[in-house]
Amino acid sequence: MKDFEEYFIRNIPTIKSFHPYYNEALSYIIKNSGKHFRPKLMLSIVKEYEPLLLESSYKVAMALELFHTYSLIHDDLPAMDNASLRRGKATLHTIYNDAIAILIGDGLNTYAFELISTSAFRDDVKVELIKILSTNGGLSGMVLGQAIDLEFEKKPLSLSEVEIMHLNKTAKLIAASLLMGAVIVDLDKDTKDKLYQFGLDLGLLFQVQDDIIDATLSESEAGKPTGLDGDKNSFVNILGLNGAIEYANSLAKKIEDEFSNLDLKLQNALKEILEKYLYRHERK
Amino acid sequence: MKDFEEYFIRNIPTIKSFHPYYNEALSYIIKNSGKHFRPKLMLSIVKEYEPLLLESSYKVAMALELFHTYSLIHDDLPAMDNASLRRGKATLHTIYNDAIAILIGDGLNTYAFELISTSAFRDDVKVELIKILSTNGGLSGMVLGQAIDLEFEKKPLSLSEVEIMHLNKTAKLIAASLLMGAVIVDLDKDTKDKLYQFGLDLGLLFQVQDDIIDATLSESEAGKPTGLDGDKNSFVNILGLNGAIEYANSLAKKIEDEFSNLDLKLQNALKEILEKYLYRHERK
Repeated sequence: MKDFEEYFIRNIPTIKSFHPYYNEALSYIIKNSGKHFRPKLMLSIVKEYEPLLLESSYKVAMALELFHTYSLIHDDLPAMDNASLRRGKATLHTIYNDAIAILIGDGLNTYAFELISTSAFRDDVKVELIKILSTNGGLSGMVLGQAIDLEFEKKPLSLSEVEIMHLNKTAKLIAASLLMGAVIVDLDKDTKDKLYQFGLDLGLLFQVQDDIIDATLSESEAGKPTGLDGDKNSFVNILGLNGAIEYANSLAKKIEDEFSNLDLKLQNALKEILEKYLYRHERK
Repeated sequence: MKDFEEYFIRNIPTIKSFHPYYNEALSYIIKNSGKHFRPKLMLSIVKEYEPLLLESSYKVAMALELFHTYSLIHDDLPAMDNASLRRGKATLHTIYNDAIAILIGDGLNTYAFELISTSAFRDDVKVELIKILSTNGGLSGMVLGQAIDLEFEKKPLSLSEVEIMHLNKTAKLIAASLLMGAVIVDLDKDTKDKLYQFGLDLGLLFQVQDDIIDATLSESEAGKPTGLDGDKNSFVNILGLNGAIEYANSLAKKIEDEFSNLDLKLQNALKEILEKYLYRHERK
């Protein structure tokens, strides 16, 4: 996805303004936006089915990543997770101030829809992409998940409630990324449904894996701070470490089954990503 | 617009969730969303040209109002204007907490695009509406205006910089509301351009009027707290009171000229609103 990475950096928006650091803040946070996992999911599908649509898809992939970026900027605010570092870099509000971090986050949320609406696809495709992003990323999706996470930081949740929390907070946007790829290449409804469920389970697995990594690896092994979950509603705290590993293994099995029921082309598109992540919790 | 008011209250979203006050917070802030000025601008145009499209337009009008609501929730946060009251009612973060206020704001921003994308219009109309809302309400519009306002709270701006601030912060979303009405009833490009410019000037006038009211009326006369502008970059502080009134009068004249150059049907659609607001700064 080297071409996408180049596109992404080349297309950081610059806004005409006399504000002293608006563009600097925008550029800083977009440049540090991480590994572009959601765009990769989407683009893998487009590349496999309709390579000629790949370049037109970059704008939508950028929308996905910037939507995710907005959520991280807001999650890191003092009023939320109060994080001063993200992937080893200072968070936006610590460099500038909370107000600009809230505003740049707001602007990127809206900008994601601007990007899709001005992309090169047919109008029916754009509308479908916007529906998927807004329903999975909004009030009954990602935002709800984060609200649950914060509200129950110090109150115990049941396993099924923690699942609901992470399905909303993380899994829906991951499933949406796959689904948006499927919409661009026009897969049938049954395939889309299967792909979406596969994405939800994959998103959930990532979260269990993160919880296991937090409990078992050192900062240098994990490549990020660990041991932070304390008495949080993590899978490890609810199920115990062995229980969480069992849970992850059975989820990984379920995902393998779902994967083997996908079209061969989809399997081909996604196998590299799956191999990389599926048993991540068993590796050191 | 009684029918719209009923639609608006009947369609407050309820999200399935075990979060203890997510829906309560959502409902509270939507119920206190004010006078629905932006929806009225849009719906007046639809009513005049295509009354049969009026009901289908309510969903888009609601999107406009909820987008505006998101911006007010965030503006009132301690990190921004730190307001504990809005239209005499407690602000969301003072009733609950900053985190839920940020999140409900985020969710309403995204939800506006969900509403438009799931409305009953043709896909090309939906895409055009989303483009207008996202470009005027986002990084190079409303968000930029608020960022400038906060950054220059204690640093003097020139008159043209204050104009740019308010064009972005307020006027663009007002102009967008008119333009969205024009898109729904399919007016020609030249008319749309004139209408948009008229909306920008009207939005700017509102701001000058607010500054004059803040400087001259008591709380009971204005129906809201006044005398708050202090050394802010208000038109009154930059131009003096008489200068600000002169500025408002010449802007009102310009708007009257622009109005008289609009199609007669548009004049008919907007004359009531114009009469109500045009010389608001001259009344007590």
